[in-house]
Amino acid sequence: MKLLITGGGGFLGARLARTLLARATLAGERIDRMVLTDIAPPPPDLTADARVEARTGPLLTQTDALKTEPFDGVFHLASAVSGECELDFDLGMRSNLDSTRALLDALRAQVAAGGKVPRVVFSSSVAVFGPDPARPLPDVVADDTLPAPQTSYGAQKLICEHLVADYTRKGYIDGRAARLMTVTVRPGRPNGAASSFFSGIIREPLAGVESICPVSPDVSHPVSSPARTIDGLIAVYEAGREAFGGRLALNLPALNVRVADMLAALEEVAGPEVRARVRFERDERIAGIVANWPRGATAARAAKLGLAPHERFADIVRQYIDDCAALPDARETLKGLKR
Amino acid sequence: MKLLITGGGGFLGARLARTLLARATLAGERIDRMVLTDIAPPPPDLTADARVEARTGPLLTQTDALKTEPFDGVFHLASAVSGECELDFDLGMRSNLDSTRALLDALRAQVAAGGKVPRVVFSSSVAVFGPDPARPLPDVVADDTLPAPQTSYGAQKLICEHLVADYTRKGYIDGRAARLMTVTVRPGRPNGAASSFFSGIIREPLAGVESICPVSPDVSHPVSSPARTIDGLIAVYEAGREAFGGRLALNLPALNVRVADMLAALEEVAGPEVRARVRFERDERIAGIVANWPRGATAARAAKLGLAPHERFADIVRQYIDDCAALPDARETLKGLKR
Repeated sequence: MKLLITGGGGFLGARLARTLLARATLAGERIDRMVLTDIAPPPPDLTADARVEARTGPLLTQTDALKTEPFDGVFHLASAVSGECELDFDLGMRSNLDSTRALLDALRAQVAAGGKVPRVVFSSSVAVFGPDPARPLPDVVADDTLPAPQTSYGAQKLICEHLVADYTRKGYIDGRAARLMTVTVRPGRPNGAASSFFSGIIREPLAGVESICPVSPDVSHPVSSPARTIDGLIAVYEAGREAFGGRLALNLPALNVRVADMLAALEEVAGPEVRARVRFERDERIAGIVANWPRGATAARAAKLGLAPHERFADIVRQYIDDCAALPDARETLKGLKR
Repeated sequence: MKLLITGGGGFLGARLARTLLARATLAGERIDRMVLTDIAPPPPDLTADARVEARTGPLLTQTDALKTEPFDGVFHLASAVSGECELDFDLGMRSNLDSTRALLDALRAQVAAGGKVPRVVFSSSVAVFGPDPARPLPDVVADDTLPAPQTSYGAQKLICEHLVADYTRKGYIDGRAARLMTVTVRPGRPNGAASSFFSGIIREPLAGVESICPVSPDVSHPVSSPARTIDGLIAVYEAGREAFGGRLALNLPALNVRVADMLAALEEVAGPEVRARVRFERDERIAGIVANWPRGATAARAAKLGLAPHERFADIVRQYIDDCAALPDARETLKGLKR
């Protein structure tokens, strides 16, 4: 089978590609070819794999060529992040809405030309949910909570959910949209996302670096480890239409955790000196944004697919440490950890 | 003030234009200019009004020029109907999604150039609601029922609701989306809409013509008269932001009525001979579509704006008769009515 992963050079896309290549099969079929598109090239371990072809450049410049290229499956992860989309409205509309539409139309053109209907997993986001004056946000958002995006990013994700649903209803694709929870612990450097600190308060102390938590320890949020997020995307791909349960998007599993409990887990796993590198310094801008976010999420449909969140945040911290330990720069990323 | 009505040549658009011109003011301001865009020209009584300028052609060919033209208010009614959108997917995407986006971007460009933020009313539809395997449709849909479109038309309307909401959040427009119920009794000829019979079973018998009802007399549906629908669009325009109650779309008021009760009302108003011109002949295709429609709707937010549906369908029949009697072709449209 031939797969396309958009955003295949990003953190989640590369991790998904790595996981799939290691499995070698998807939905019972052997993975022969894997095309990774992204604005930046994927990591060298992926390009070294003979099955992988990397295509670098904006997705929107690549979709015309896709109109005549058959794929068995697509993971559509490419996206501008929420901070970028708030700062540059046109960038968000182009990167998230126009690119998704062009991708779906390319797949449809290929089907119209007699190709196989590709299975498509679209990565939506918990950012589709927010409060609206007419209807406050419930504490915990479910699969069927009424979405009310608070950001252009969330609006674009929600709009794409409905494009995927309608292209699926029309038989142009076999699409499924899965809402990703906040992925924690992300490796690398802090990014512009308001949610960046959810990774930072674990990652930086482990690297021996001070970290500032801009919100109260009582803030609660639905998070998911990178590994469970990838598991979720693969399970959603492999689910039969009926098992997926409808055309609308589903929530991926979340561990609903308070900042205070995240830090307690960090202390449990890495000790009090590591925990002590985090201090609280309220940032009104970030705290204001976070106050409009769900404090938790449920994922009843994902549970029926056998998907579950980590039960303890300490397990997520341990997974991050294990992931880092396997990488070449482990010395830097775990510099703060007495082992 | 200067107004734009897209779809201003259509039945609802022309009726809205006529109502506004007769009122002469909107939200306390005098209406000086009214631009009506549509693929067909508006009726002569409208073009005869010195305040009216008609622009004929697809909206998408007109939006570039709008980028430098300031408007105080916009009623965006232009739309391809559901039957067309199911038959021709690209037509629906172009007429409903691309045109709305281009209109919003034109208004935004005008604001970016220093113009006033225009107030925009977008006509969405009860077609945003439908059943989904993961979540059956409730019998009665409310403002905050989770939309699950069953048609491309419904999906496009829902997507545009969220575009309007996000452009509003960003301050590019002051937008409000209002979901129209099935407008009954529409004058004119049957059209391709699956809902066409809801008007046909009243309109044709009054014109002395036999009419076939393709669904069971037990079918219930949320309907609204043309006049109440126009009242709703105007009230939504005039509502303050807070009174509108949030950014998400609201339902316009509906009379939830069974086909059997519609026909009883016809008999009450026009007599048994008129009623006898309707016979039931089940059409599986139409009955199947209608089975996926809501059996009723509530409109709590619209009620707070002082909007109410007709309480009795007989009043809607009487309104249709009065409307027809005022028109030049009254003899034809009311041919079946003994007066």
